[in-house]
Amino acid sequence: MNSSIILVNQPEKSRYIIKSLEKIKPFFLIVIGTTETSKIPGISAAGKNPEITDYTPAADVELLTYGRVKSMDSIPVTPEGIPTPAIITMSAICLSRIPFLVVMAGAKVMPKTPYVDLGGSPGSDIRSGNALKDVEEVFERAKILGEEISSTAGYVIIGESVPGGTTTALATLLAMGVDAIGKVSSSLPKNPHELKKKVALTALNNAKIRLGDCRDDPLGAMEKVGDPTMPAMTGIALGASKNGLVVLAGGTQMATVVAALKVINKGSLEKVIIGTTRWIAEDRSSNIKALMDEIYSLPILAINLDFSSSKYPGLRSYEEGVVKEGVGAGGMSIASILYSGHTLTSRDLLNNIEENYGKLVKG
Amino acid sequence: MNSSIILVNQPEKSRYIIKSLEKIKPFFLIVIGTTETSKIPGISAAGKNPEITDYTPAADVELLTYGRVKSMDSIPVTPEGIPTPAIITMSAICLSRIPFLVVMAGAKVMPKTPYVDLGGSPGSDIRSGNALKDVEEVFERAKILGEEISSTAGYVIIGESVPGGTTTALATLLAMGVDAIGKVSSSLPKNPHELKKKVALTALNNAKIRLGDCRDDPLGAMEKVGDPTMPAMTGIALGASKNGLVVLAGGTQMATVVAALKVINKGSLEKVIIGTTRWIAEDRSSNIKALMDEIYSLPILAINLDFSSSKYPGLRSYEEGVVKEGVGAGGMSIASILYSGHTLTSRDLLNNIEENYGKLVKG
Repeated sequence: MNSSIILVNQPEKSRYIIKSLEKIKPFFLIVIGTTETSKIPGISAAGKNPEITDYTPAADVELLTYGRVKSMDSIPVTPEGIPTPAIITMSAICLSRIPFLVVMAGAKVMPKTPYVDLGGSPGSDIRSGNALKDVEEVFERAKILGEEISSTAGYVIIGESVPGGTTTALATLLAMGVDAIGKVSSSLPKNPHELKKKVALTALNNAKIRLGDCRDDPLGAMEKVGDPTMPAMTGIALGASKNGLVVLAGGTQMATVVAALKVINKGSLEKVIIGTTRWIAEDRSSNIKALMDEIYSLPILAINLDFSSSKYPGLRSYEEGVVKEGVGAGGMSIASILYSGHTLTSRDLLNNIEENYGKLVKG
Repeated sequence: MNSSIILVNQPEKSRYIIKSLEKIKPFFLIVIGTTETSKIPGISAAGKNPEITDYTPAADVELLTYGRVKSMDSIPVTPEGIPTPAIITMSAICLSRIPFLVVMAGAKVMPKTPYVDLGGSPGSDIRSGNALKDVEEVFERAKILGEEISSTAGYVIIGESVPGGTTTALATLLAMGVDAIGKVSSSLPKNPHELKKKVALTALNNAKIRLGDCRDDPLGAMEKVGDPTMPAMTGIALGASKNGLVVLAGGTQMATVVAALKVINKGSLEKVIIGTTRWIAEDRSSNIKALMDEIYSLPILAINLDFSSSKYPGLRSYEEGVVKEGVGAGGMSIASILYSGHTLTSRDLLNNIEENYGKLVKG
């Protein structure tokens, strides 16, 4: 097995899947959204400051499309200046030419790229207990998109960029009865579990639901305490699973999609795997394997990227647990290697990321 | 050669192309837009009355997506009740399952479907001489879309729904120095050539340009006297031609795309063909062959659909020269037959159209 890809669980099934995807050309749908939840101080590191997180998803996908950002002066960074994981995805796209489209689930800032609009709106602060509008409509349109794109692609990769997404994930999972406390990851080096839990429980309280009350109603849980990317990703995954494999390219927040699919169409999960990063797979402050296993045990692959020898402090910080994942970084890195038939390695990705990042920070 | 498809010109090259597309799965991009030009009385039959033409593109693509219209009470019809050509495209999609996406180039009414937004706006009345905004931006985004979709599809089919589109085409072609007077078709049984010419010349006059002044500036011509679908279709075609064949699925208004590509990247036209209907190919009040030949001689295929034996007067009217083409009807009919490997025929399409139309008019 190529050491570029880590088999987090189910080694036999994972090896079979890796083999079956070799040289197959996928299509990447990068779903973006914003939620006012990201502006709660201390929740998200996806922006220099909480207010600027509205721009992060647009900037992320501009980076993928043009290799530079149009809606901001520089690439999205954490308060400490650590760069967005979109630079990883950008390299995966550069090196593999895997085709992709941006999907607008509901964001405050529209990217200056083509994007598929699903009729959604930005999310409110989940503490209102009334987070989303038009959840059903977005889900239905997303299903159509997933079905159409998967009909032409080898398989479909779904990523997300939504600051605050692990907190909305925690709340939505709790609403659905998944014991996710202490298991969701964070873009911050010190996972603010207590703050997240407080926000999530306030959200449930104001939505007038108790833990597990939305066990059979995932769209209802999202409507009350979720973020816009959730119904979009769930719909795309469901539609795409009709025609082939679906890679949920992300960390612990993909658990909401898995939990939702389990209720809506459990059979579809036979076609779903998780593609993430080593930083998520090895994270001691979260537990993607335990979280997924509690919902539905599906194969988890992780890209074996290591930034410890990078000449850029911003990249080396990934090794200290900052950022970790996002914008489909892990899944797209894996897919780029598989599509190349393993002629591409995580070392090539690393070199390309260093090169691109060097250019981006210079000017 | 299968008699379902008429070779309008270049029989040898056309036969070769038909053979090469057999059993290949294409992707259909249906580009929608509106222009205030459609509200000039007597210009467009794409709606019960001029005011309602704003809804026609949205309704057309809802019909393709759901088999029914959501934004209006009934399917789009001409003032005499003749149905939209979207019912033909709908059958082509039903029978072939060719995947598609709606592309929003700039329309007043957003469809209740997923759609790719290119950042455009609805068009003004071209008599202002100032028809479009953000032409360059829409063109650039469209190019990206064309490149991404063609990277995954066997080939790309581009259709349009824009009421008033042949009048804006006339004006744009004149601005580019193409002698299109008397050659563009019409959705009306009596082609209002004089009215169109008057509108087009007023547009040029108010744009302060003479015939041919925009010979080397197609995007400039569109900006002044075009409609939103033009930069979108041109960009998609250019992007998609990098990866494979492009079928411009439409009538004489596709001449603007061909004229624009000739200036922007003439080589790309080697990858472009026209797919239209017999009603356009045999129209005595327009001349697609002469029009194209004046610009660039590319293969023109026409679907051999004949509604004369239909039990519905609304469909029989197509034989009297009403509607003729639109929403990619001709090109998508051809593609559905080719994708089936000729197991599908124009007879099957006809039967399916009759069946669907029967259901739609009943309820």
